[in-house]
Amino acid sequence: MSQARLDHIAIAVANLEEAMHFYLDALGLALDSTEVVEEQGVRLAKLAVGDTHIELLEPLSEETPVGKFLIQRGPGLHHLCLGVNNIQEQLAALKSRGIRLIDATPRRGAGGAKIAFIHPKAAGGTLIELSEQHSE
Amino acid sequence: MSQARLDHIAIAVANLEEAMHFYLDALGLALDSTEVVEEQGVRLAKLAVGDTHIELLEPLSEETPVGKFLIQRGPGLHHLCLGVNNIQEQLAALKSRGIRLIDATPRRGAGGAKIAFIHPKAAGGTLIELSEQHSE
Repeated sequence: MSQARLDHIAIAVANLEEAMHFYLDALGLALDSTEVVEEQGVRLAKLAVGDTHIELLEPLSEETPVGKFLIQRGPGLHHLCLGVNNIQEQLAALKSRGIRLIDATPRRGAGGAKIAFIHPKAAGGTLIELSEQHSE
Repeated sequence: MSQARLDHIAIAVANLEEAMHFYLDALGLALDSTEVVEEQGVRLAKLAVGDTHIELLEPLSEETPVGKFLIQRGPGLHHLCLGVNNIQEQLAALKSRGIRLIDATPRRGAGGAKIAFIHPKAAGGTLIELSEQHSE
């Protein structure tokens, strides 16, 4: 995974408009896009920062993973996502090392990417997503 | 701050060697450098990922900010750092908007950078550092 790049860093927020007000107006970051990702139960805003992104995630309900996170930990840094070239290969390599995965096989994420999460218990408490961009 | 880039994302860890084992050996990220920053009370490992960095922070004692964070929240994502060109100007602009700052004036960080933290209460629960690189 030596070609890994930081695809994005995700932040759980209670109110997307309030959070965008801070990141766009006060910090002056640029809005790339907004999207509803039903599969992950979030409404998100993608902000450009250098060659990576900050994603602000507002849960669609309290029963979603981000909704539960907000109740348990409050708003703040949620996960980081490494962009990889061959996610199947990376997952196989992690499995062969006994690294605990949330997703043993990739599923679809925002923008049609193939994504999978490593279990935070395997990564010292940090939730890490791997993402292979959609190419056609 | 429209030229902002993501300088680094910092992760609080209880044991730097164990964390490095995961990030370097299992994830295959590259080690840039290790450093003790007495002023911030941490021993850190800087990992290269794309044009940004992941910093693993091990507290030097329980009384440091990262030591207290570990006790209160456990290991995991700690803060993100935006690289800016003129930190004095940015802090003045934030202050003029009534944004609460931890550091009203910059102090010295790792590698001699000028750094300042925005209060997490002003940023929806996320600890955000601003950093202007040392240039001479």
